[in-house]
Amino acid sequence: MTIRRKGQSSYLVSNVGIMAGAAIGGPMEGQGPIGKYFDRIWEADTPKGSSFEQAERQLLQDAQDAVLEKSGVSWDAVDMVLGGDLLDQIVSTNFDARRHQRPLVGLFAACAVFTEAIGLGALLIEGGGPQKVLASAVSHHLSAERQFRFPIELGYQRAPTAAWTATAAGSVLLTSGIQDLSVSAVTFGRVIDYGLKDPNDMGSAMAPAAVDTIMTHLRDTGRAVSYYDKIFTGDLGKMGVKMAIELAKQDYHTDLTPELDDCGLHLYFIDKQDVHNGASGPGCSASVFSGFLFSQLFNAAWTRILLVSTGALFSPTTYQQGESIPCIAHAVAIERRQSS
Amino acid sequence: MTIRRKGQSSYLVSNVGIMAGAAIGGPMEGQGPIGKYFDRIWEADTPKGSSFEQAERQLLQDAQDAVLEKSGVSWDAVDMVLGGDLLDQIVSTNFDARRHQRPLVGLFAACAVFTEAIGLGALLIEGGGPQKVLASAVSHHLSAERQFRFPIELGYQRAPTAAWTATAAGSVLLTSGIQDLSVSAVTFGRVIDYGLKDPNDMGSAMAPAAVDTIMTHLRDTGRAVSYYDKIFTGDLGKMGVKMAIELAKQDYHTDLTPELDDCGLHLYFIDKQDVHNGASGPGCSASVFSGFLFSQLFNAAWTRILLVSTGALFSPTTYQQGESIPCIAHAVAIERRQSS
Repeated sequence: MTIRRKGQSSYLVSNVGIMAGAAIGGPMEGQGPIGKYFDRIWEADTPKGSSFEQAERQLLQDAQDAVLEKSGVSWDAVDMVLGGDLLDQIVSTNFDARRHQRPLVGLFAACAVFTEAIGLGALLIEGGGPQKVLASAVSHHLSAERQFRFPIELGYQRAPTAAWTATAAGSVLLTSGIQDLSVSAVTFGRVIDYGLKDPNDMGSAMAPAAVDTIMTHLRDTGRAVSYYDKIFTGDLGKMGVKMAIELAKQDYHTDLTPELDDCGLHLYFIDKQDVHNGASGPGCSASVFSGFLFSQLFNAAWTRILLVSTGALFSPTTYQQGESIPCIAHAVAIERRQSS
Repeated sequence: MTIRRKGQSSYLVSNVGIMAGAAIGGPMEGQGPIGKYFDRIWEADTPKGSSFEQAERQLLQDAQDAVLEKSGVSWDAVDMVLGGDLLDQIVSTNFDARRHQRPLVGLFAACAVFTEAIGLGALLIEGGGPQKVLASAVSHHLSAERQFRFPIELGYQRAPTAAWTATAAGSVLLTSGIQDLSVSAVTFGRVIDYGLKDPNDMGSAMAPAAVDTIMTHLRDTGRAVSYYDKIFTGDLGKMGVKMAIELAKQDYHTDLTPELDDCGLHLYFIDKQDVHNGASGPGCSASVFSGFLFSQLFNAAWTRILLVSTGALFSPTTYQQGESIPCIAHAVAIERRQSS
């Protein structure tokens, strides 16, 4: 029940369980290869009469409600809500908090916010602070596209390196004490910026940040790549994963294959569903973990994974002003309780 | 060295010191009544050749550099950087992190982000996690106005209830162990929304959230209003303070006068400098605390204050869509070491 510091970036914890995870997705996510692992798939991208932004908020609410129901825990028992989203002023997370009335700690780390929330929650619980923490992240394709790129009504052509922002939310309920799945380690990332400027190729921009956090985590904890059954980045996509593997080889003489995988490669049938580089958005790693990965761990396919959500920290303003894209990745190790 | 939980919202800590605080302000802030408490006043609103957004980032950098210099601590010794700003995707905080390369936990709570950062940092330190945490917040009048309202070049007329977003940054270095000033308690707020919709009257919108957090803090900790020499809200301004005092009387039969004061009432000569309701922005409570209030505590004018930064969690999009303004306030108690 004490946080063990490992270097300046990593922490080991031993008393942080995950009571349940829940994932909600849009129609396209339901048609993807892991559609059956979602707790619920919406029939339409937006509920009737709802704006894109209101739809995103509703996705988050549905994921939170589902995880509480699965855990048998009421809102009253939640000590703290941690999370974020991509919208300016994280309005999905903030407006959602009007109904639950729990202490809210709003976060922003772009698509890396899910592991930032889990990591913070794990340290707060282990340190004796809040003991039931709800960690969530959400994105919606339609609200993200019109904020960051173009309204989809324009029907513009997407770049081959562009990712598809997921219409999805994921939420986990963290608790002190033993559960089948637990958080065992946390590594907070630093900002890495290789000077790339193309908002339609964020996988390449984020790969160096992912590699930096993974290698820092392994060094801090003294774990080998093979300690993990899988290392899942958040949304590097096809290009980003290729680049991450190359970077780890060149800069660290480390082969991340076959462990390295990416949440963004699992959400859609990439070619058939025409999503180019893969899935992205805070809801990508949040929903892929809370549905598919949670299930794989729970059902003993794997014992240990490292989840490394990846975020591109630019804004439309910085892009228009010609700035490069700073990126970050935060890692959390999730383990299944081993039968003794 | 253990976090003591008080209710679901509040926590007592006993081993979190503040090594130093630093505040940087623009020319108008320098001409205000507490100008002399700033570590440095800029000669112009923006450095030569810098965009408004780059200027905001530079303000933050200057505050961080100043607090590290005053503490005699190098960047290498900082375990975690916590903070946020008002800009979309908190780009001031995120872009600043390119240079310092420390683990970054980005936050968004609008103008309440400074106490969200201090509160989180205090729990993380007390719980045995990071032991040196830099907590900061920044805003810039020119970048905020063009993002939230109109470009100031339009010369539009400001509403009498409108606040003046401060061009200012504040930063404190938190550490484990005894210092002259320490954090003794933290209360995280919930989102309160009374249905107000006017982005030119945020003091009125935020007052109920401030009162809710203050009353929750007093109830959780069993402290009377008079436990504190002063209770400083973040940026309620003239209207907001008046409303907060009325609300506390009506709903809680509690008289917050004479303890209640507001950072937004101190940064400018309100009438002479034509700022209408007072100062606002994440940089308001951050700089007023890190400069003026820190100095008052340090020099024994006061022994204990409760700092309650207040945030309006709307975005231009939610405003244009006719939504109301959800608000939040987070409280941290700061005490001076009593001579024994």
